[in-house]
Amino acid sequence: MATDLQIYSTTYETALLRDIIPFWEKYSPDREYGGYFTCLDRTGNVFDTDKFLWLQGRQAWTFSMLYNRLEQKEDWLEISRLGIEFLDKYGRDRHGDFYFSLSRKGEPLVQPYNIFSDCFAAMAFSQYSKASQREEMGVKATDIFRKILKRRDNPKGIYNKIYPGTRSLKNFALPMILSNLCLEMEEFLDKGLVEATLDECVVEVMEAFLDNERMLVYENLLTDNSFSDSFEGRLINPGHGIEAMWFMLDIAMRREDQALAEKAKEVILHLVEYGWDKEHGGIFYFLDVKGHPPQQLEWDQKLWWVHLETLVALAKAFKITGDPHCWEWFGRVHAYTWENFPDPEHGEWFGYLNRRGEVLLPLKGGKWKGCFHVPRALYEVWQALEDIEKLKIN
Amino acid sequence: MATDLQIYSTTYETALLRDIIPFWEKYSPDREYGGYFTCLDRTGNVFDTDKFLWLQGRQAWTFSMLYNRLEQKEDWLEISRLGIEFLDKYGRDRHGDFYFSLSRKGEPLVQPYNIFSDCFAAMAFSQYSKASQREEMGVKATDIFRKILKRRDNPKGIYNKIYPGTRSLKNFALPMILSNLCLEMEEFLDKGLVEATLDECVVEVMEAFLDNERMLVYENLLTDNSFSDSFEGRLINPGHGIEAMWFMLDIAMRREDQALAEKAKEVILHLVEYGWDKEHGGIFYFLDVKGHPPQQLEWDQKLWWVHLETLVALAKAFKITGDPHCWEWFGRVHAYTWENFPDPEHGEWFGYLNRRGEVLLPLKGGKWKGCFHVPRALYEVWQALEDIEKLKIN
Repeated sequence: MATDLQIYSTTYETALLRDIIPFWEKYSPDREYGGYFTCLDRTGNVFDTDKFLWLQGRQAWTFSMLYNRLEQKEDWLEISRLGIEFLDKYGRDRHGDFYFSLSRKGEPLVQPYNIFSDCFAAMAFSQYSKASQREEMGVKATDIFRKILKRRDNPKGIYNKIYPGTRSLKNFALPMILSNLCLEMEEFLDKGLVEATLDECVVEVMEAFLDNERMLVYENLLTDNSFSDSFEGRLINPGHGIEAMWFMLDIAMRREDQALAEKAKEVILHLVEYGWDKEHGGIFYFLDVKGHPPQQLEWDQKLWWVHLETLVALAKAFKITGDPHCWEWFGRVHAYTWENFPDPEHGEWFGYLNRRGEVLLPLKGGKWKGCFHVPRALYEVWQALEDIEKLKIN
Repeated sequence: MATDLQIYSTTYETALLRDIIPFWEKYSPDREYGGYFTCLDRTGNVFDTDKFLWLQGRQAWTFSMLYNRLEQKEDWLEISRLGIEFLDKYGRDRHGDFYFSLSRKGEPLVQPYNIFSDCFAAMAFSQYSKASQREEMGVKATDIFRKILKRRDNPKGIYNKIYPGTRSLKNFALPMILSNLCLEMEEFLDKGLVEATLDECVVEVMEAFLDNERMLVYENLLTDNSFSDSFEGRLINPGHGIEAMWFMLDIAMRREDQALAEKAKEVILHLVEYGWDKEHGGIFYFLDVKGHPPQQLEWDQKLWWVHLETLVALAKAFKITGDPHCWEWFGRVHAYTWENFPDPEHGEWFGYLNRRGEVLLPLKGGKWKGCFHVPRALYEVWQALEDIEKLKIN
């Protein structure tokens, strides 16, 4: 296994530093208007110039994160700055909420109906503040964080199309993202606020959204925490649940909470087994908990982020718990992922495969895929594997 | 060809009367709370009880239409009444706009962000008024129609997420649906209003949204009628364009406008050729006019309504213009459609196939598929084929 570990570890490191990062460094920066192009075709050509704020924030975060954790390369800081300053200059409406998308030049296109623009902006500003040592950026990050907490109960605001009262649902994504964002921003936040927010997030994720009998994570729940027998309530997104579990593992490590780590590991193993396509391999995008047809026509597709986040979760879970099932599953998901997603011809990874693992959209980036899940996961898995190696030697 | 015609004609008639209508008569009516169940699994079992207003209106329309045009069966009128009274009692908010969805009992779930609920309600009320001879239902239909015209320039109202001014797009669906609705409701509307609305719709569809050089129909256009090089602007939905062309053929017939008929026929032939999947057969759901990856992950799927509306368009175009290319394409689309969509085991048709023509979702009805496209198209094709047969004999 030691040899396996080394081979795997080198694979993730090499792909990150020789393939993924150079691709985005080369094709993505918009040196003319600031920010990044994310709609890149198979060869890296820009096929659309709109700027989607999730992806602007995420890419700015990625380059600052690499600067802070891996190597203080001036180029990385500069690329991060390009996104931060674009976000800072054009990103907010008059209430301080972040738009969903802007034109290439920064004119608003889609209103702030989606609070995750704000979440990824806060993540980016705080990481960049550490990298650049520009304190004002940390202040901006905390301002955004506070506004997110305020909007928490009705994150879509006036753009919410749900009629109030008939079926009051809450969504999994916000407590999930907050549990990660809170750790990300820890040094900028009041200690009490961090602990309180983490406590709430862990309860929401592990007690409310996690169905402890089925060991599945719901995407939507009634506000009294009960199951809603509706399209929204029955929806399972295995990759989403698994990603949340590695955020839980991070919290468990920080708090030395072995019980939380064990529980998160069990959920990861169950979700990957549940979501695995026994016929064609890979993890389904969406399933209905009762086995009914989901409303998502893309339900059977194999998405890059689902597989990468699963690899992160399995590597971390193995590192922390040593459960050999995690290592077995890591091998299986690794084999599927590396066989199907990377593009050996033009570099970087395809994002969207059909059920059979054939390329569905020959893009490297688009409205939802940017410079984030691939580099973050490659980095996280590489680090976890190195830690495991060190543990084996000691 | 005469024999072919008879075989085809019997196929459409038999499927309509022996398979499709009995399926919906048996499984769909909610005799307890009114309205219809539309989420039916492969065998007809109800798997979700929410009531989506597009489908409530469309099914009420279908049964009244059959009553008016085919046979005055009391059962059909009664089924139509079930939907009409449910819509009338629970469908509107306090401004008189129709919700998008209701619970089984009629409680509002999703707000009136979607004007097509109103369009299909107007269609249903007017057709039911003719069938039931209840005049007040015709008055209600015209009230809805007038409100649609008022909301026309901003149909999503407060739920519109687009920032005003940066990129002002208009959408193809409303002029397309209005051109059909206007003919549907003709006898309830002022003659001047009918002609003016039809004039506007024909101009919008055939001069604005139709790209006369490429012979393709855009889904979205800048408000000055120019092309928008964006995900929305580049989007082509071949089935949508083809369906609109048979509405144009209906207008051409009514106005004895042979030039409009010829033009619509040319567009149909070009769109079916353009949208045809040369590798696996069938018509793609979405394409990008520049060949870039569309944002719709379901772009390569084969949908029931796309194929049925194409059959209607080709049958009507052949009947009106006699162009043999229409008959050739009719044969090709007929063969694909009948081989892949009908369910020989449990009756009715599958709605969603993957690119290879395999069943993607084993449902007979859901949030978007109800009792509408299959019966309407079977009826329309059957009638068109009978007309062609009569023309041949004379």
